[in-house]
Amino acid sequence: MKFEKKKLANGLVITGEVNNRAKSAAVGFFVKTGSRDESKQINGVSHFLEHMLFKGTEKLNAFEVNEAFDRTGAQFNAFTSEENTVFYAAVLPEYLAEVTGLWIELMRPALRDEDFDIEKDVIKEEIAMYKDMPSFDVMERCRSLHFDSHPCGNSVLGSEENINNLTAEQMRGYFTSRYAPNNMVLAVAGAFEWEQICSIIEGGCGKWQTQSVARPLEEAAGSKKKKRVEKPSLAREHICLMSPAVSAQDKRRFTASLLGVIVGDSVGSRFFWELVDKALAETATMQFGAMDGTGVFCSYIRCSGENVPKVLETIRDIFSNLAKDGITNDELKKAKNKVLSALVIKNELPMGRLIDLGFNWIYLERYCTIEDDISAIKAVSVNDVHSLIKQFRPGDFTQFSIGP
Amino acid sequence: MKFEKKKLANGLVITGEVNNRAKSAAVGFFVKTGSRDESKQINGVSHFLEHMLFKGTEKLNAFEVNEAFDRTGAQFNAFTSEENTVFYAAVLPEYLAEVTGLWIELMRPALRDEDFDIEKDVIKEEIAMYKDMPSFDVMERCRSLHFDSHPCGNSVLGSEENINNLTAEQMRGYFTSRYAPNNMVLAVAGAFEWEQICSIIEGGCGKWQTQSVARPLEEAAGSKKKKRVEKPSLAREHICLMSPAVSAQDKRRFTASLLGVIVGDSVGSRFFWELVDKALAETATMQFGAMDGTGVFCSYIRCSGENVPKVLETIRDIFSNLAKDGITNDELKKAKNKVLSALVIKNELPMGRLIDLGFNWIYLERYCTIEDDISAIKAVSVNDVHSLIKQFRPGDFTQFSIGP
Repeated sequence: MKFEKKKLANGLVITGEVNNRAKSAAVGFFVKTGSRDESKQINGVSHFLEHMLFKGTEKLNAFEVNEAFDRTGAQFNAFTSEENTVFYAAVLPEYLAEVTGLWIELMRPALRDEDFDIEKDVIKEEIAMYKDMPSFDVMERCRSLHFDSHPCGNSVLGSEENINNLTAEQMRGYFTSRYAPNNMVLAVAGAFEWEQICSIIEGGCGKWQTQSVARPLEEAAGSKKKKRVEKPSLAREHICLMSPAVSAQDKRRFTASLLGVIVGDSVGSRFFWELVDKALAETATMQFGAMDGTGVFCSYIRCSGENVPKVLETIRDIFSNLAKDGITNDELKKAKNKVLSALVIKNELPMGRLIDLGFNWIYLERYCTIEDDISAIKAVSVNDVHSLIKQFRPGDFTQFSIGP
Repeated sequence: MKFEKKKLANGLVITGEVNNRAKSAAVGFFVKTGSRDESKQINGVSHFLEHMLFKGTEKLNAFEVNEAFDRTGAQFNAFTSEENTVFYAAVLPEYLAEVTGLWIELMRPALRDEDFDIEKDVIKEEIAMYKDMPSFDVMERCRSLHFDSHPCGNSVLGSEENINNLTAEQMRGYFTSRYAPNNMVLAVAGAFEWEQICSIIEGGCGKWQTQSVARPLEEAAGSKKKKRVEKPSLAREHICLMSPAVSAQDKRRFTASLLGVIVGDSVGSRFFWELVDKALAETATMQFGAMDGTGVFCSYIRCSGENVPKVLETIRDIFSNLAKDGITNDELKKAKNKVLSALVIKNELPMGRLIDLGFNWIYLERYCTIEDDISAIKAVSVNDVHSLIKQFRPGDFTQFSIGP
């Protein structure tokens, strides 16, 4: 396992972990842009732009893009979040150069007016589809309520109205400022030759123009508001809770992950034993979400309407016991085993390793081996978790519900 | 990478692939039993039994089972199909012995009357939930129409009525005959010590009683019937097509997989370009399903009601062109790249390797290296695909539709 790193003159960082025992290789562009970087007026543009990258370049039309991926046999995908847009692929080692060249080509899209107009309908259908999924809808609305005027409350998909009003010109402007080489990281993992891949990347990306690009960071305390919306068509109550947590840059991020597992892992957690196993709720989970300069604990609970009062009372009890008596050594040990095995198993595949490699550079500007992460997780103490609970009071949350 | 194999006196086969460079280890019981092994009267019992294995043994109650998995940090799961019930877990190497011991314990469940009665409601909720998913419902109904009186047409979940009538006594009888050591394979993959794991398995499973157990095998020609059911609540038409194919034991199974990819991969296939890219259908896929002594090509198409005639005409054209002109070299090459990269990437993880290791023994009673499979895929020729098309005529299918 060998770590490599290079920064081009235009600011593009290439980060690689060579593992010649791997049987595949993975490559990805991590663009540091998402809904939090959008003004209200163009909200939804990052996600729409992610789609447009597959519509072609000056050299390739959409059909040829598809054909080009097909030739490499790649497993490829892309996703947009509040703060990143990521494009990645895993292939057999002999196709890595070809698929890397293809991504480089796609990262300078044509953004043609006619493609923009057609894709608008696809985006609006996606918005409508997610609106119909109450588990997704309640989280998005809770996020907006929690973050209030903080940009992390922006919707990733945007509203139908916003998408209707968005122009191709606005998208091209956003693209130029955000898809700058100094605002992205290109990561490569698995079986590959560093020098060969670097020369392809330098040849393809070396001339991209540096831009002045920034993201204002501020902590979010969270509104702690409570809100409920009625939707008569629903059979179940959907509840989302959010409270502030440490950021992706904070050393205590593993402590926060472990607390999330202890309180709200899908099996064996406090939520599981008190809510799911007792048949009060069908689902009850809590997760730590690390973000740039801020963070959240996010819980999702689904239950019948008649169980709502008992569910909320139980949640209050869980958090007040947590604040009063803390956690046990045994709980922390079990949570560490879960987090460690998930981490190791995910990172065993070049595709999984790529994600950590890219995000570690995006958030920490450094390379972390799996062993670094394992040591950091093992070092977390019961007292560390108690300090975190004391400072962030996860029982003091923003709450959004949708139900019949 | 080292292959190991042992057969206990009672018939239990242990198959292992030791890879000391792996960072995790996986273990699984592959029980050769599923809905095709059920009489009409007890249809659904295999899947119900899979649930009951987590309800405890003479030594452990359900709470303790959960706690025991939790301690190991395992990523674990189980699934039931028409012909297998599989229980598996991936862990850090230091927990493999513990989680193997736990699975061995669970494979001799208490099957208590009170747990059986409570779990019945969970099973019935699962049946109701899947009935509400038209993509699942249409496939199950098409399978039943296609296989007609052949046992492969049995539903995995069973009907609500069947589950209501099922007794704990019937389940215990089915368990004794099917969960016999000579009807299962225990597979282990990743970083582990073969001798140590074998001694745990021999100690735990050595006394299990051999049973007389069999599965009658017969080819299924498929009914080729067409049927449509109206469901006014649906917004879309769901169409499932099935036609016969080679079995899991047949050397031509890779040829069949490649044909499935060429015709119906989710991207870049003939279905994709003619149906999805032209916006006639939202989804259109075809896959090869290998089974014990038989096999199917199964297609699923979702589209608007008004597009149905055009979609069906296009499908007819696709299959008649396939029969007339066959496939191109370029199509075969692209399909091979996709199948090879999916195979290699999946098998890079001990958890993925475990599945192939187990099923290769269940179906072929032999060990296949990844390299064996890669060579077999690379060796498939355009003529092989043409012979398969000629013999199995995939355009001559059973058809089930559900729509508004």
